[in-house]
Amino acid sequence: MTVEALIFDVFGTCVDWRTGVAREVAAATAAKGLQVDSVAFADAWRDLYQPRMEEIRSGGRTYVDLDVLHRENLDATLDGFGIAGHFDEEERAALNHAWEKLPPWPDVVPGLIRLKASRIIAPCSNGSIALMTRLARYGALPWDCILGAGIARAYKPDPRAYLASCEALKLEPAQVMLVAAHNNDLAAARACGLKTAFVARPQEHGIGQVTDLKASSHWDIVAADFPALSAHLDLRNHD
Amino acid sequence: MTVEALIFDVFGTCVDWRTGVAREVAAATAAKGLQVDSVAFADAWRDLYQPRMEEIRSGGRTYVDLDVLHRENLDATLDGFGIAGHFDEEERAALNHAWEKLPPWPDVVPGLIRLKASRIIAPCSNGSIALMTRLARYGALPWDCILGAGIARAYKPDPRAYLASCEALKLEPAQVMLVAAHNNDLAAARACGLKTAFVARPQEHGIGQVTDLKASSHWDIVAADFPALSAHLDLRNHD
Repeated sequence: MTVEALIFDVFGTCVDWRTGVAREVAAATAAKGLQVDSVAFADAWRDLYQPRMEEIRSGGRTYVDLDVLHRENLDATLDGFGIAGHFDEEERAALNHAWEKLPPWPDVVPGLIRLKASRIIAPCSNGSIALMTRLARYGALPWDCILGAGIARAYKPDPRAYLASCEALKLEPAQVMLVAAHNNDLAAARACGLKTAFVARPQEHGIGQVTDLKASSHWDIVAADFPALSAHLDLRNHD
Repeated sequence: MTVEALIFDVFGTCVDWRTGVAREVAAATAAKGLQVDSVAFADAWRDLYQPRMEEIRSGGRTYVDLDVLHRENLDATLDGFGIAGHFDEEERAALNHAWEKLPPWPDVVPGLIRLKASRIIAPCSNGSIALMTRLARYGALPWDCILGAGIARAYKPDPRAYLASCEALKLEPAQVMLVAAHNNDLAAARACGLKTAFVARPQEHGIGQVTDLKASSHWDIVAADFPALSAHLDLRNHD
């Protein structure tokens, strides 16, 4: 079956969340004269991401969207850094928008423009429609539509997140390829019948990164970046 | 409150469904040597649109998306034109994609590009995500995301279609403006608290059109076309 649509993990795969969040944290804390390691803050904020979603994936909590979880995690991280008293409700709400202001990796926008010429492209992220829409405007990500948790009301790697995205496009899973920098995301998509493409992002977690440095399985495509992914797909079509 | 997002009716307001559908019907029937008034066929197909959605709005039927309703209505229209025997399942499925190949009115794409520079733009249509995504690719409609019935699982003018669209963007209804060529659509949106803009499309139903030739109420904006709407909004911001 031909790949009719490419759906993308976003945080880490398309955008550099660590740099973007650290930048917003640095600005917000500097404005208050606070000395904070903004990169460590970004990492700590992100570290709460999986455990908080797991409460929902495991059925222990009804679905709430990622903006709500990010906000809860921000409160906890401010506590952990001992600066909770410096941020009121309005300032916390403003800082939570850091996740909408993340720089795309340099190859992403030119790559997506090429990929979009012949296939539907859409995020399949755990971010909400609101978050993904504003992030796309910030980084000029030329999505055709927004898929993922926002329409599935389920968090990856829950199969419903992938399957609802395929269903929304009226495509079979085998007609859809997930593009991700995370092997576990691709494994879950493959288990649902989707095609898979791995693009390493070896600096997602900074220069000391030890995870997802390479493909851990025989994914359908392993590409160095998004333009290379486009070239791989063009070759497949000529087979 | 500032208008942060513009959401658009699509069939009739953004695209010329009558010309587009008639063109696809003409091609499909000519290929079989059939003599069919393709514009009359498009009108008949569209005439079944409201009654079929009303079955769902009234609660008499569980939500199914517009592609399903379009397909049921196609079957009925082929029957009505006495040509049902000429189209098998696969050909009917192919012809149903006519609704994804509709030309935008000439002002729409340049207008949307201008409007997108300062505000979120999204369809708030009764079409599915699949339909809206492919229609956007066909006509180069530069949406930020896809809202409307596809995310609400409810058909306009059901209030849920408008309110779910606002909620998906995390905006208050008063921060969202519906743009439509249909007064009843705007009235329903206003009742939900949204801002309203009317753009007449006096040839949606051809040269003999008698409905929606002008604004029937004091909508927030009445504009001749999408670039004029953009100019109106710019003026409001300078008030």
